[in-house]
Amino acid sequence: MTETAFPPPGSPPGFLVQCREREVYPSRLRLICYGPEPLVEQDNITVAQYLDGKNRPGIQWLHLEGLQDLNMLRELGDALGLHPLALEDILECRTSVKVEDYPGYLFIVCRLVNNQADFADEQISLFLGADYLLSIQETHHDHFAPIRERLRHSSGQILHRGPDYLAYALIDYIIDTWFPLLEDFGDRLEDLEDRLLAKPDGSLIQELQQMRRLLLRGRRILWPLREVVNNLLSQDNPLIQEHTRIYLRDCGDHAFQIIDLMENYRDMASGLIEVYLSSINNRLNEIMKVLTIIATVFMPLTFIAGVYGMNFKTEVSPWNMPELEWYLGYPFALGLMVVTVLIMMLYFKRKNWL
Amino acid sequence: MTETAFPPPGSPPGFLVQCREREVYPSRLRLICYGPEPLVEQDNITVAQYLDGKNRPGIQWLHLEGLQDLNMLRELGDALGLHPLALEDILECRTSVKVEDYPGYLFIVCRLVNNQADFADEQISLFLGADYLLSIQETHHDHFAPIRERLRHSSGQILHRGPDYLAYALIDYIIDTWFPLLEDFGDRLEDLEDRLLAKPDGSLIQELQQMRRLLLRGRRILWPLREVVNNLLSQDNPLIQEHTRIYLRDCGDHAFQIIDLMENYRDMASGLIEVYLSSINNRLNEIMKVLTIIATVFMPLTFIAGVYGMNFKTEVSPWNMPELEWYLGYPFALGLMVVTVLIMMLYFKRKNWL
Amino acid sequence: MTETAFPPPGSPPGFLVQCREREVYPSRLRLICYGPEPLVEQDNITVAQYLDGKNRPGIQWLHLEGLQDLNMLRELGDALGLHPLALEDILECRTSVKVEDYPGYLFIVCRLVNNQADFADEQISLFLGADYLLSIQETHHDHFAPIRERLRHSSGQILHRGPDYLAYALIDYIIDTWFPLLEDFGDRLEDLEDRLLAKPDGSLIQELQQMRRLLLRGRRILWPLREVVNNLLSQDNPLIQEHTRIYLRDCGDHAFQIIDLMENYRDMASGLIEVYLSSINNRLNEIMKVLTIIATVFMPLTFIAGVYGMNFKTEVSPWNMPELEWYLGYPFALGLMVVTVLIMMLYFKRKNWL
Amino acid sequence: MTETAFPPPGSPPGFLVQCREREVYPSRLRLICYGPEPLVEQDNITVAQYLDGKNRPGIQWLHLEGLQDLNMLRELGDALGLHPLALEDILECRTSVKVEDYPGYLFIVCRLVNNQADFADEQISLFLGADYLLSIQETHHDHFAPIRERLRHSSGQILHRGPDYLAYALIDYIIDTWFPLLEDFGDRLEDLEDRLLAKPDGSLIQELQQMRRLLLRGRRILWPLREVVNNLLSQDNPLIQEHTRIYLRDCGDHAFQIIDLMENYRDMASGLIEVYLSSINNRLNEIMKVLTIIATVFMPLTFIAGVYGMNFKTEVSPWNMPELEWYLGYPFALGLMVVTVLIMMLYFKRKNWL
Amino acid sequence: MTETAFPPPGSPPGFLVQCREREVYPSRLRLICYGPEPLVEQDNITVAQYLDGKNRPGIQWLHLEGLQDLNMLRELGDALGLHPLALEDILECRTSVKVEDYPGYLFIVCRLVNNQADFADEQISLFLGADYLLSIQETHHDHFAPIRERLRHSSGQILHRGPDYLAYALIDYIIDTWFPLLEDFGDRLEDLEDRLLAKPDGSLIQELQQMRRLLLRGRRILWPLREVVNNLLSQDNPLIQEHTRIYLRDCGDHAFQIIDLMENYRDMASGLIEVYLSSINNRLNEIMKVLTIIATVFMPLTFIAGVYGMNFKTEVSPWNMPELEWYLGYPFALGLMVVTVLIMMLYFKRKNWL
Repeated sequence: MTETAFPPPGSPPGFLVQCREREVYPSRLRLICYGPEPLVEQDNITVAQYLDGKNRPGIQWLHLEGLQDLNMLRELGDALGLHPLALEDILECRTSVKVEDYPGYLFIVCRLVNNQADFADEQISLFLGADYLLSIQETHHDHFAPIRERLRHSSGQILHRGPDYLAYALIDYIIDTWFPLLEDFGDRLEDLEDRLLAKPDGSLIQELQQMRRLLLRGRRILWPLREVVNNLLSQDNPLIQEHTRIYLRDCGDHAFQIIDLMENYRDMASGLIEVYLSSINNRLNEIMKVLTIIATVFMPLTFIAGVYGMNFKTEVSPWNMPELEWYLGYPFALGLMVVTVLIMMLYFKRKNWL
Repeated sequence: MTETAFPPPGSPPGFLVQCREREVYPSRLRLICYGPEPLVEQDNITVAQYLDGKNRPGIQWLHLEGLQDLNMLRELGDALGLHPLALEDILECRTSVKVEDYPGYLFIVCRLVNNQADFADEQISLFLGADYLLSIQETHHDHFAPIRERLRHSSGQILHRGPDYLAYALIDYIIDTWFPLLEDFGDRLEDLEDRLLAKPDGSLIQELQQMRRLLLRGRRILWPLREVVNNLLSQDNPLIQEHTRIYLRDCGDHAFQIIDLMENYRDMASGLIEVYLSSINNRLNEIMKVLTIIATVFMPLTFIAGVYGMNFKTEVSPWNMPELEWYLGYPFALGLMVVTVLIMMLYFKRKNWL
Repeated sequence: MTETAFPPPGSPPGFLVQCREREVYPSRLRLICYGPEPLVEQDNITVAQYLDGKNRPGIQWLHLEGLQDLNMLRELGDALGLHPLALEDILECRTSVKVEDYPGYLFIVCRLVNNQADFADEQISLFLGADYLLSIQETHHDHFAPIRERLRHSSGQILHRGPDYLAYALIDYIIDTWFPLLEDFGDRLEDLEDRLLAKPDGSLIQELQQMRRLLLRGRRILWPLREVVNNLLSQDNPLIQEHTRIYLRDCGDHAFQIIDLMENYRDMASGLIEVYLSSINNRLNEIMKVLTIIATVFMPLTFIAGVYGMNFKTEVSPWNMPELEWYLGYPFALGLMVVTVLIMMLYFKRKNWL
Repeated sequence: MTETAFPPPGSPPGFLVQCREREVYPSRLRLICYGPEPLVEQDNITVAQYLDGKNRPGIQWLHLEGLQDLNMLRELGDALGLHPLALEDILECRTSVKVEDYPGYLFIVCRLVNNQADFADEQISLFLGADYLLSIQETHHDHFAPIRERLRHSSGQILHRGPDYLAYALIDYIIDTWFPLLEDFGDRLEDLEDRLLAKPDGSLIQELQQMRRLLLRGRRILWPLREVVNNLLSQDNPLIQEHTRIYLRDCGDHAFQIIDLMENYRDMASGLIEVYLSSINNRLNEIMKVLTIIATVFMPLTFIAGVYGMNFKTEVSPWNMPELEWYLGYPFALGLMVVTVLIMMLYFKRKNWL
Repeated sequence: MTETAFPPPGSPPGFLVQCREREVYPSRLRLICYGPEPLVEQDNITVAQYLDGKNRPGIQWLHLEGLQDLNMLRELGDALGLHPLALEDILECRTSVKVEDYPGYLFIVCRLVNNQADFADEQISLFLGADYLLSIQETHHDHFAPIRERLRHSSGQILHRGPDYLAYALIDYIIDTWFPLLEDFGDRLEDLEDRLLAKPDGSLIQELQQMRRLLLRGRRILWPLREVVNNLLSQDNPLIQEHTRIYLRDCGDHAFQIIDLMENYRDMASGLIEVYLSSINNRLNEIMKVLTIIATVFMPLTFIAGVYGMNFKTEVSPWNMPELEWYLGYPFALGLMVVTVLIMMLYFKRKNWL
């Protein structure tokens, strides 16, 4: 296991390298067989153990958690006849969400969010064959327990359908995890809105920017996922039965609803930023106004005081500041100031600044 | 009936759950039969009662108001052979506006605005079969009374056409409700414009933002509705007769007019925001200008007054502020100030600041 | 004639209602017959009079001005077999510009600007049949006199072609009216530019916004008109002869030139706004600069004057403002001030602020 | 020759009118025949002279410079069987860049920039027939001399190909003139960048806006030109031989390179504007900071000086400004001021404002 | 070898001119033959030497480094039957990234980044024939050494496939060089973010702008490269074998991942600019606030000091500033000031400005 994030340029294709950016979990293979015969579950098996019972009738759901064991991956690839490029895609850091049509099986790459705080996601790779489904996930989160439950209790029609229906069930699960995620996200956004309206603050903006980035990230995951579903719908690959298509259509519809909800939140977030900016702006304007008014009021007053603080000798001539010797000189000066203030106030009033 | 907004991820499809976000109304089923025989209306019937007369000739319009009774929904689904996914879509919170082609019937989802203040809407689901139309609405608003009236009084051709024409009539109704809505909206927008031009105020901007959000919401409802109509037009489904297509085309045209009107309002709203921002900006500029002028006028004056307020001893030397002992010292100082003001004013005039 | 702007939602389609938003003119029908036999003009006729001579050979151009007489409209519809939805479209307030293909005739809706100040427009509806053209306009403006003249004097090939060529002539007229309109518009825009560069003023911005709105409105009229022409070109409807298509192509080209010109003006208008904003911004900067310089120059000076205006008793100690009793105390203070100013000026110069 | 910019609305199509917006040059017709027989050049001939030798074998390149002589244009149209609408397009002010397929010939409209300062352009119209090429330009600029040279010296394969190759050579010339134009443009832009970074100035912005407008204009000319080339490539008109298509493809590629280069310059220009705005902004901030610091430093100082300039009688009570009579009163006051300044400086330092 | 950047307009096509904008390296031809027989490498050969062994079986990889020797290029073109336009494209400065289908070979133009600091790139031209691949690069960077190694050690399947697989390997190499490039880029961006958050500074913005320009440049190179790959995938040219298509699909996928990563960085960069602007804005607001508070606090204080600095004669009347002779006159004045400050502080507190 090398320590680079990607194969060095020029290395041959299908070269299996761990993505350095993520934690690597130990590999663990799980098998569920169902179909005409009763359901059988085997946990923690090796590829050899799987191969022993490969020819039994019914549908086989192989589920691999953790990508540490590159050998197991290679053995699985050999056992099921998977293309090395597809195996390489399982390990790569940023494999695109996509469907690829290989002879004999479909290779589907999805991403599943496993952390609602930062929308961190992991890659789910599905290989859909005629009688098997191989699903591979990076971590040990037990995402698909509800679907195993449905298989065990035969709830719904899942037990009576082919592996394409099982693949649908997994994709449907992956899409539906977004509903609670977004509900929580919406709550956080509304909470942020309340705080922002109460007291506009730069730090909230950083929080908001972060939430917008989450939405962008979500969109980058969901748009191609929807494309994957549409792709599965429009292909006339015999691996997807007619009956399953109606369910896939519904699935695509859910993806669309989620995207629509995200757009809604994006609009809300943009609106919040506008509200914030305009409130900041209003504030600056208000401060400027107060500054102007105080400055314009006190400057003339200080000037008047300054005039009567001049030291011209009144005794030299009757023209030199005779006010200083008036009987009501001081009240006159104060009165002058009051009149000045009143005139100013009137002017501001008329200008609509108060 | 659980209390979540959506089925938990991983639950089997077609799982009927009430959307938690909206009020649930009691269910009430209404039936109108018309066609070759005279029109018969039955209100408040059960599904069993409906099934009794199911084989009578003519067209049957089943209308369900309120979604409380999930059993009734299931019975209806069984009676008409509706797909569980479609039933699930009726209950979901954010089902997309769409047409879906199921074998034997079309499933059409629309949204009808029932509150002109906040453009709150409810979902209208239509199942269009060969000889029936099942329409389902969430609330008890009696939206479609005018269409029942047309049926009762046989006004227009509605009585002589198939259920597709009835579906058209409902969709046409849903689209046409936008005309009075938008007329009212336009009035509010013009009123807002008047107030904004009279006195630019931050609170009006919030109102304006809200109105823009309404337009966005309206667009989100109408665009897919128009797509629905186009979809119905372009499908060569035998459920839609050739004759009805001309009417649907007209319907799509109305939707387009409404969208165009909305675009108009959006432009107006954007223009208002620009007007507001530029008036706020102008105001700040004007305030700055006044501040500058007052500051620049009074600072030199105060300085002059300050100079002649210095206490240099005139008796020590003839160089120490001889002005204080001039016969016209004070008038000279005042004159200096007046000259300073005049020079400033001239400068400002030339700079075009007054 | 009711007094609403649109039929109430739920009313049957094809319901003839006057649009409340516009003035209604008295109806007046005019007929021109031409073709193999000499041209005959009849003004102010009734539909009955028209029907009397309906079977004569050649091409009939029916022109209806004013929509007051709803009966006449209905009679015309009956006489020519027009669809009620098309008749409804004639009366509606905001019928989209479009072509609709009805069995036996084409229904074309255009809009013609009849006021160059505010680009107010009226709807022109054309019904193009195999041997007739019915054109309907809302007002009594005599737009199409030049085309009647061409018919009367047989100028060009108009007399020897079918009603499709006549329809082309009308549409060409409608498009070509934009050339003088836009020339005038361009003059106004250039005039505005000159005034804006001479003295940036907020009121000019409002004028500019208005002109941009006119351009938007123009675009909303012309884009669909161009679509109409393209639509007529691409249809292989036998009502449009091959020969006429070359002319329609030219017509679409003119529409495109006009749209291109509008885009040009839109760019110019946007550029003007940027110029305005940057000049306003520059101005604010300049004002701020002057304020700063005056404040920074006079504040230290006033401070110095303030210091020597303090009343410390010089007689108490030799440390108490000995400057006051220096022989050159006052010149020293003034010199201090001059030096301060010079240092400041140097600083500003170096900072590139002067 | 009338004096309007366009035919009056309602005039018959194919009406030849000079565009009033441009200078009209005297007409001058030039003929080059080549092909199996040696090349023959005739300059300044009449249409009649051309018709005399019309039947000789080989390819005829007719080149018309200047549009003054409308009769010559009409005669040419008659001689070659050109459609009146195409002739009208030659004279119009703003004919779109386009290809039109007429029976027997292709009509191609290009625009050629003939002034590198303001990207002023003239229209080049080409009529490509089976054995002739008629090229028409508005001015007397001798653009195509290099191509005549290639014909005369038989350089390249031009002499051995049909008129379609000649048309390609002209279009290639028209596109390639952009390379030196844009090289010069790039130099001007870089020069502007240098000046802008050295001293941000509003007048440079106007220059930049003008350069952006040039780019827009260039794009408006080149995009449709590229469409013309693609159009010629995709048509399977026998007038364009297979062999010429490879050359046309190269031609379209050049157009694309030029457009890409323009996009580059557009990005650069936008970047420059952002740089300018942020530098202006920084400057305002810096000025504000200095103002604040000077104001906050001197206001307290002036206040202290003001306090000790109050005239309270020290002799009335020991509480009345005893500082005035302290032995070190003045140094104390100055010290107070120094301490105040130091505290302020510390505060500003901590706030990171210095 | 001429010294212009492009052939002069009007010169015949296929004219070989060196692009003036880049350094020209001496030409050096290298040949690798492989296939059924063991691999043979020949370095620094002439075209004549190549032609000697041209008929030997297997696949021939011709690699030309440096474009100085135009004769060698012409000889190669003659030897392999390459079109002069393709040869011209090798030399041009800005040849678009593209695939062109010539009879017998495909001509592929890519660009390879060879400088991670400024994303400077060079053109890689590939000619893919039935049994040869000619690759041409501008510089002497030994890019493709890893692929030669794979050939030499027969690692992977490269030795057993046709020249199309070799072409894939080169294109894959060209695309994969972006991964380390972008990893480094991401590190620089994060470093920039840290510095920007620590101390917002205009110079960082210029750095950021430069990084955005790099991203734009990268996008301009990668988008068409992806198009090239898609183009190769969708063509049913026999030169591309079915087996190679799966690899090319993977290649296109990598290109898409890189573009997606770039979009991510672009979002990050935009976000950083917003963060910077808002922090600059906040700062200005804070400075304004401090200015306002200091001004509003000291202006009234200075005014009060000014009032008691007026020289009204207290001896003239009891109305003339009796405070001056109060026993506690000075403490009263100071108290007045303190009270004023307290009132102000309260006001600011209530206004939420402190």
